[in-house]
Amino acid sequence: MSMYAAPVARLIDEFEKLPGIGHKTAQRLAFHILNMPMDKAIAFANAIIDAKKTIHYCSVCGDLTDTDPCRICSNQNRDRSVICVVESPRDVVAMERIREYKGLYHVLHGVISPLDGIGPDDINMKSLIKRVGNGEVKEVILATNPDVEGEATAMYIARLLKPMGIRTTRIAHGLPVGGDLEYADEVTLAKSLEGRREI
Amino acid sequence: MSMYAAPVARLIDEFEKLPGIGHKTAQRLAFHILNMPMDKAIAFANAIIDAKKTIHYCSVCGDLTDTDPCRICSNQNRDRSVICVVESPRDVVAMERIREYKGLYHVLHGVISPLDGIGPDDINMKSLIKRVGNGEVKEVILATNPDVEGEATAMYIARLLKPMGIRTTRIAHGLPVGGDLEYADEVTLAKSLEGRREI
Repeated sequence: MSMYAAPVARLIDEFEKLPGIGHKTAQRLAFHILNMPMDKAIAFANAIIDAKKTIHYCSVCGDLTDTDPCRICSNQNRDRSVICVVESPRDVVAMERIREYKGLYHVLHGVISPLDGIGPDDINMKSLIKRVGNGEVKEVILATNPDVEGEATAMYIARLLKPMGIRTTRIAHGLPVGGDLEYADEVTLAKSLEGRREI
Repeated sequence: MSMYAAPVARLIDEFEKLPGIGHKTAQRLAFHILNMPMDKAIAFANAIIDAKKTIHYCSVCGDLTDTDPCRICSNQNRDRSVICVVESPRDVVAMERIREYKGLYHVLHGVISPLDGIGPDDINMKSLIKRVGNGEVKEVILATNPDVEGEATAMYIARLLKPMGIRTTRIAHGLPVGGDLEYADEVTLAKSLEGRREI
């Protein structure tokens, strides 16, 4: 039994469906919307609809885009011999932010996770193999997350690409810059020791 | 310079305007919307518009409602001799949740706060004085938040009502001082209602 009028209950319910939003926060956000001027609320609703209508997956790399191919795939200044494989469109943004990487991307939209019933065919992997087979690609950088599923997915892709004669690399594991040796977990510390380089 | 296509940047921006939502969370929410099925996104946008269109302030108590007067004001089983004064519609919900209070409400939509330039005329106070003057009301319970502005507002209202011969009470300080009515648990809130004193 809700204490709210039906449209308010529904709005709270919609906010509560969003990731990381609990009941209290959903209430707070809903009441914020109700206290907004009408035009601001309409702008918010339209932003949702517009984004959904104009944004789709790039047919080449799978990133979210309002053009096709996306701006990165169609940019002739990017290095077309390197493809960086990531899990999600947010990871593309994270990579772009460092302003060092000039190659292309491939977005998997997930990772292989047998426990969740997600196999290689359930993520955007086939089109990666097809892209790599065009002869232009020299290196594939596997930048999936450094967790169990991300590692397994990177290993799986590496095993597919190696026989094709493609250089396949994995982003380095180690201590985050500005981090503290004392607070690093054992696995990270072991990885950073293992991956040490001469200076 | 945003790394996102314009409609995505706008959606992130709209989420970031919500209270307590930072840039990272706004990004996460926007990408969640982009990964939703179209019909779910439309349902979300419609929930915002519907709530804004059908919900307005009750002409009697100022609470948010889809009827006028609201369900509480028009409920003949409620005790019409008591009015509980609160800061916001969320506080009405908090009070209703304890299932002990059977009187009516009055929502101020704010508190007196000279530092923010909010005086007695900027909140929904005049209509309270008018309601109290109808002869039916015997007691006004001041349930503003137990913080500086809430106390000051309660004192101000009490001073206006006393000369009218109305019993004016303040909810007890069972609530932790500096706390927030909205987040109080039911037992604390019930205790503070039970221990109200004349001021």
